Amino acid sequence: MRSNQFVLGIDVGATNIKFGLVDSSGKITATSHLVTRDFLSHKTKLINALLDECAILFKKNRFNINNLLGVGVGLPGLVDVTRGIVRFLPNIPGWKDVPLKKIMEEKLRIPIFLDNDVNLITLGEWKFGAGRGIPNMVCVALGTGVGSGLILDNKLYRGEGFTAGELGHVPLNEKGPKCNCGGWACLEQYVGNKPLQKKAAGLFKDNRIQLEEVDRLAEQGNPKALKFWHQIAEQIGCGLVSVVNLLNPRRIIIGGGVSNAYRHIFPVIRETIRKRAMSVPARMVEVVRAQLGNKAGLLGAYALVNDAACER
Amino acid sequence: MRSNQFVLGIDVGATNIKFGLVDSSGKITATSHLVTRDFLSHKTKLINALLDECAILFKKNRFNINNLLGVGVGLPGLVDVTRGIVRFLPNIPGWKDVPLKKIMEEKLRIPIFLDNDVNLITLGEWKFGAGRGIPNMVCVALGTGVGSGLILDNKLYRGEGFTAGELGHVPLNEKGPKCNCGGWACLEQYVGNKPLQKKAAGLFKDNRIQLEEVDRLAEQGNPKALKFWHQIAEQIGCGLVSVVNLLNPRRIIIGGGVSNAYRHIFPVIRETIRKRAMSVPARMVEVVRAQLGNKAGLLGAYALVNDAACER
Repeated sequence: MRSNQFVLGIDVGATNIKFGLVDSSGKITATSHLVTRDFLSHKTKLINALLDECAILFKKNRFNINNLLGVGVGLPGLVDVTRGIVRFLPNIPGWKDVPLKKIMEEKLRIPIFLDNDVNLITLGEWKFGAGRGIPNMVCVALGTGVGSGLILDNKLYRGEGFTAGELGHVPLNEKGPKCNCGGWACLEQYVGNKPLQKKAAGLFKDNRIQLEEVDRLAEQGNPKALKFWHQIAEQIGCGLVSVVNLLNPRRIIIGGGVSNAYRHIFPVIRETIRKRAMSVPARMVEVVRAQLGNKAGLLGAYALVNDAACER
Repeated sequence: MRSNQFVLGIDVGATNIKFGLVDSSGKITATSHLVTRDFLSHKTKLINALLDECAILFKKNRFNINNLLGVGVGLPGLVDVTRGIVRFLPNIPGWKDVPLKKIMEEKLRIPIFLDNDVNLITLGEWKFGAGRGIPNMVCVALGTGVGSGLILDNKLYRGEGFTAGELGHVPLNEKGPKCNCGGWACLEQYVGNKPLQKKAAGLFKDNRIQLEEVDRLAEQGNPKALKFWHQIAEQIGCGLVSVVNLLNPRRIIIGGGVSNAYRHIFPVIRETIRKRAMSVPARMVEVVRAQLGNKAGLLGAYALVNDAACER
């Protein structure tokens, strides 16, 4: 691989679609974005928008396509990485078994690689962020969904059917609230954004209160807000005890909206792991904040494409 | 590697120490054993017993040591596999940071490889038993302790500090009974042999009732016994939902004493996974019985030594 080669990262989210040209140092040299809802009427509309935006980005930046190693696309759902097929996107209707790699390669004549969005965030943090040089790590994304990506023995582990890392659906209790996955008592039903907002609304008797406001209240020492974050952190910690005991990672990296309340949740998460996980793996695991914010997926696209290019 | 080469497997348990000469087809051609409690007074006594028994086994079977690829030793505790050091054996006193590989190699002049006993069982089932050809699988050992070994992307995954796979210490609930690991509500506190025997004793008002008897009662349709196994299977299943959602394995292999009640527990374990785990990984995972019984560790020793020899 020559060092003047770039990767175009595309991070497809349920709200926005981000584009970024990434160089080998992890610098994003050009960006653009689309609003996802403008292209939801049919999957072809969204695919064409992706292709058009690639062409626009190259043209606007006078980008020489010979310097492009490939395109990495992160998608919010189940992706068959080997075949380059989008199996299912829970929040973008109409996407079922779409051979996106083939469709895009035929148009763009550039190698295209697809993966799940949380996997790309994980690769990004591993190669350029809070996980550099760490052979065994778990990258947790706290949001409406609670997901994770697993780097095990210096490799992204995807599982038999590309669904590994579903931390949000680790049961927290034998019995508990129903989950939209069909199960119940899943971690996401306790610490996902929706149950948290509902809980905050009840606690503060204010249906419109935002989690950022509860973070500010905790900052000011509000006891209700402090207790709110304490309990959430214990629950996240309990889920991570399973991860620590099963996978014995050296580092757990936590990002996503709720991680902005890190002052209130990280000490309790660490304490819960120390108290509940087995002593050897508990002692060696570090719990740290994600470093790359919303750039992680684009940088992960670089890692995905570059690794694939090195394997060829 | 020549096909006439053998591995000497040694399976150190808290009760017995098994020795077996294993050939490349997984056939055990000669065996012997020691009773562990005869050698507990000092670690040197146990080490010397291991060395003596190796020599006796070779002599008795007129074994040509040139046909030996190496010795694989499984130990019931924490093993630094890379350095060949036994870190800690919870049920064999006096073992702390013992450089067993070096000690045995100096005496025997044969390559020695150490690993945790459940890891060797996992390697055995993977290479010669219920997991042949499966790239992603979890091998569960149900007993006094509840452990597991992880084959991920066609490789035994040991974790950062060789403690991965501690399924018995996955929390089953936010709150629950204290565990001797220092945590609480660990799966082992619900489905390990000790809590099960206590539970059976209370249920049948008989302090000496054995789990085998509860299995027989369930066979005969005893409602209390059927309910006993049903609840245990739901709890094992709940622990395995975490494994299925985090690791998306193709197969889960279950062995150990409690798995003898497979007629009563396996259908409920499968049903619990089907109901509680995410649909894609739940649909693709098979839950099967271990095939190798108490030979698994010795056969795993073959796999360990052979893989190490191939890497050299």
